[in-house]
Amino acid sequence: MSTARIDLNADLGEGYGPWRLGEDEALLDVVTSASIACGFHAGDPTIMVETAAAAKARGVAIGAHPGFHDLRGFGRRVIRQPVREIERDVAYQIGAMQACAALAGHRVSYVKAHGALANLANAEPEIAEAVARAVAGVDRGLALMVMPGLAAERAAESAGLRSLREIYADRAYAEDGQLAPRGTPGAVIHDAEAIAARVLRMVEEGGVLTASGQLLPVGIDTVCVHGDTPGALAAARAVRAGLERAGIAVEACCGA
Amino acid sequence: MSTARIDLNADLGEGYGPWRLGEDEALLDVVTSASIACGFHAGDPTIMVETAAAAKARGVAIGAHPGFHDLRGFGRRVIRQPVREIERDVAYQIGAMQACAALAGHRVSYVKAHGALANLANAEPEIAEAVARAVAGVDRGLALMVMPGLAAERAAESAGLRSLREIYADRAYAEDGQLAPRGTPGAVIHDAEAIAARVLRMVEEGGVLTASGQLLPVGIDTVCVHGDTPGALAAARAVRAGLERAGIAVEACCGA
Amino acid sequence: MSTARIDLNADLGEGYGPWRLGEDEALLDVVTSASIACGFHAGDPTIMVETAAAAKARGVAIGAHPGFHDLRGFGRRVIRQPVREIERDVAYQIGAMQACAALAGHRVSYVKAHGALANLANAEPEIAEAVARAVAGVDRGLALMVMPGLAAERAAESAGLRSLREIYADRAYAEDGQLAPRGTPGAVIHDAEAIAARVLRMVEEGGVLTASGQLLPVGIDTVCVHGDTPGALAAARAVRAGLERAGIAVEACCGA
Amino acid sequence: MSTARIDLNADLGEGYGPWRLGEDEALLDVVTSASIACGFHAGDPTIMVETAAAAKARGVAIGAHPGFHDLRGFGRRVIRQPVREIERDVAYQIGAMQACAALAGHRVSYVKAHGALANLANAEPEIAEAVARAVAGVDRGLALMVMPGLAAERAAESAGLRSLREIYADRAYAEDGQLAPRGTPGAVIHDAEAIAARVLRMVEEGGVLTASGQLLPVGIDTVCVHGDTPGALAAARAVRAGLERAGIAVEACCGA
Repeated sequence: MSTARIDLNADLGEGYGPWRLGEDEALLDVVTSASIACGFHAGDPTIMVETAAAAKARGVAIGAHPGFHDLRGFGRRVIRQPVREIERDVAYQIGAMQACAALAGHRVSYVKAHGALANLANAEPEIAEAVARAVAGVDRGLALMVMPGLAAERAAESAGLRSLREIYADRAYAEDGQLAPRGTPGAVIHDAEAIAARVLRMVEEGGVLTASGQLLPVGIDTVCVHGDTPGALAAARAVRAGLERAGIAVEACCGA
Repeated sequence: MSTARIDLNADLGEGYGPWRLGEDEALLDVVTSASIACGFHAGDPTIMVETAAAAKARGVAIGAHPGFHDLRGFGRRVIRQPVREIERDVAYQIGAMQACAALAGHRVSYVKAHGALANLANAEPEIAEAVARAVAGVDRGLALMVMPGLAAERAAESAGLRSLREIYADRAYAEDGQLAPRGTPGAVIHDAEAIAARVLRMVEEGGVLTASGQLLPVGIDTVCVHGDTPGALAAARAVRAGLERAGIAVEACCGA
Repeated sequence: MSTARIDLNADLGEGYGPWRLGEDEALLDVVTSASIACGFHAGDPTIMVETAAAAKARGVAIGAHPGFHDLRGFGRRVIRQPVREIERDVAYQIGAMQACAALAGHRVSYVKAHGALANLANAEPEIAEAVARAVAGVDRGLALMVMPGLAAERAAESAGLRSLREIYADRAYAEDGQLAPRGTPGAVIHDAEAIAARVLRMVEEGGVLTASGQLLPVGIDTVCVHGDTPGALAAARAVRAGLERAGIAVEACCGA
Repeated sequence: MSTARIDLNADLGEGYGPWRLGEDEALLDVVTSASIACGFHAGDPTIMVETAAAAKARGVAIGAHPGFHDLRGFGRRVIRQPVREIERDVAYQIGAMQACAALAGHRVSYVKAHGALANLANAEPEIAEAVARAVAGVDRGLALMVMPGLAAERAAESAGLRSLREIYADRAYAEDGQLAPRGTPGAVIHDAEAIAARVLRMVEEGGVLTASGQLLPVGIDTVCVHGDTPGALAAARAVRAGLERAGIAVEACCGA
């Protein structure tokens, strides 16, 4: 079974103050949706407005990309805290991103959790539900980008939110559909052509490829690519080219 | 000339993490509008949501109270920066507050600048305009609370925003209508009855009282009271009682 | 078996910027050692210098009280991170405290880990060793305050540091000598006289009292008291009075 | 009049958490002293320890490089605050750097103020004295790196500190010996050979070159170079090569 259209998304705006991370400008020419950091793990109001404006100028949709309140750990460290607090932190970040988007003449169309928060939301229903409650509490019109088949997708459904099911271009999957942990051999794929071929197969066949070569069938709305190294940017371009060559339309799910 | 109705506002939610400042619960029983700190000089998402919920429960209107990005200095230190950055920081904080209000089932109806940011906005048109642009950029339906007769009020008007003109219950005014600097003798008035009498006179006569005893005529929509010391709380209660005794309705300008 | 002398310590300087926590001045009249927050979970350079100066003025010894880099969570949230990072964060905070002490004319004589960091150091040898390495790396003359019989004490020993074995005045102990978790019924004792009696018994008999009433024998150099509520301050005073009435000298272990 | 030996210094360790700035490794092969950010405007304990270790491995001396408490503004924004607070913030940062250096097996030998703090210290005696008091209060053996002929140098002298007089390789000087403001045409020199020639002339003749081509005679102990762009790194190398070709020994003032 083949998908006739697909979204390409990337995490952007991941600088802070004087610092920058990744090649945002180049990546905005490749993707159709940009998930923008909201100031808790990265991003500041200036970067948020400018990234939203750059996305708008290219017809790229934007999402709020909230994370744990942890600049120094870039939102990658698990911080154990009451789910109530997580819900409120996520809501805060979404609202902040909406306002920055408004200044840039753009509009937030989805939310995607970042780093350790996303990992927890995939694995723990309580946290997935806190994130979904935050999104629904702020604006029921926002979609929630999730890994398919896990707690986060179920929470989006229960909250009555549209979910955007996402696969990772350069990451191997464990047999249960979770990402293979970054430390594991083969967990991150580096070869641009291998990544492009793999994405095309997952999108065309409608499933994620596990380490053992199995295809777990899942719905796919969007593919996450990266741009924080020259190699990653080349891979992102190869993914897009591969999809387009196969006749698959690369376009935003919503809100471009 | 007498004003038949007036709003009473106070700054609330000025804690952070484990810390609290002021007697928010008691003050919410006195005021009709609460200006809530938005996380930059004080406030965090949990405090913001809980303060908005407590205001909602009492029918108290809420405003976003953005400040400089300076927890340690409580937004009272001047930080020189490009006005563009100020505009974006203010927008970010408004959006964050709107989302926290939504989680609490409430709605932000106005914006009031805090501390050093407010002082600059009263004195410098460029900064006043940056604040007004941020408000208008996020939501033209928001009112902007300002000191009457200064740069901030003119900027609100130019931006097409409704302005809420505010006087300070316990502060003396200089002859130009600015607040007498905190250091100055007599700049802060402490006696509850003196404060209440003074507010009543300013509201009834429609102007601010300067150090020399002159009344500078200005429009007045709201009176700012404080609650961060037991004395301040008593004064706030005296102000409200004094106004009501004189037959002036104490009610929110908007959005309770 | 009785101890002829004992140190009383408390955590102090736990404010930040405009915020304060606890009654530091009153508590400094009760304790003989003050563990001062170093800016990561609480404390800022001004508070650190002023707290050190106030301790100096009363002949109270001071310790650096490092915690996780988490103002908002007050260092009470576990943040999983490489032990190398913990070692460096602890060293940083010790050095900062030493410099602030120097400005105040005082001298740091010990280190005590705070909150979630202390809990981890009691339970996990790797983290206990990281803390001990940080102390030894900065200054071998510093003592390390630890809960007796746990990983932290062993790590202090291995690192060649003098350890100051501490019991908690108002906390119940589990049968393994760890603190009963705060949630548990009876985990925190509130009655001032009960606390004073309990401390006297633990100090005189040389062990910690578990929930079941058993005495686990351990060496005791210091007793931790609190002052963040009026009740806690009264209890601290009762503890000191009780010890002195029993003829036990209350004095700093080192460095007053 | 010629100087037979000179120090080359650069600002290093200016990353934070996931972010990096400048080519520290390459620059450490060029300079003889490294001024390391201390966590307030940039730098974190991990970066501080690793930068100190990398300096130690190459025999490069290190200095503490304290700035305003302003990560987002990178210490380049003026924050008006009591001088007492500045003194304490500087002391805190020096102590933190000393501890991180100790973990790395190195030793801090000097202090150099960063960004807006340095600018204020050059122009305002009160602030220069606060910085010097902080250095002297922590450790009288530390030198203070200053722009010659300005308030900072006089404050170092009054505090009994050794001062290291510094010129900037790529910056034009105003006629009063201050740096020409960054905005001004010609304020920053970009051509590597022009920079090298200019430094050689200033070092050999013992003075700073003003915009009008005048040489203001001052003592010079060290030359500040940058490495945050490929061009800057090339210029730093050209400066060193030019000095060595002229027979001037390039070596640390102290503490390598």
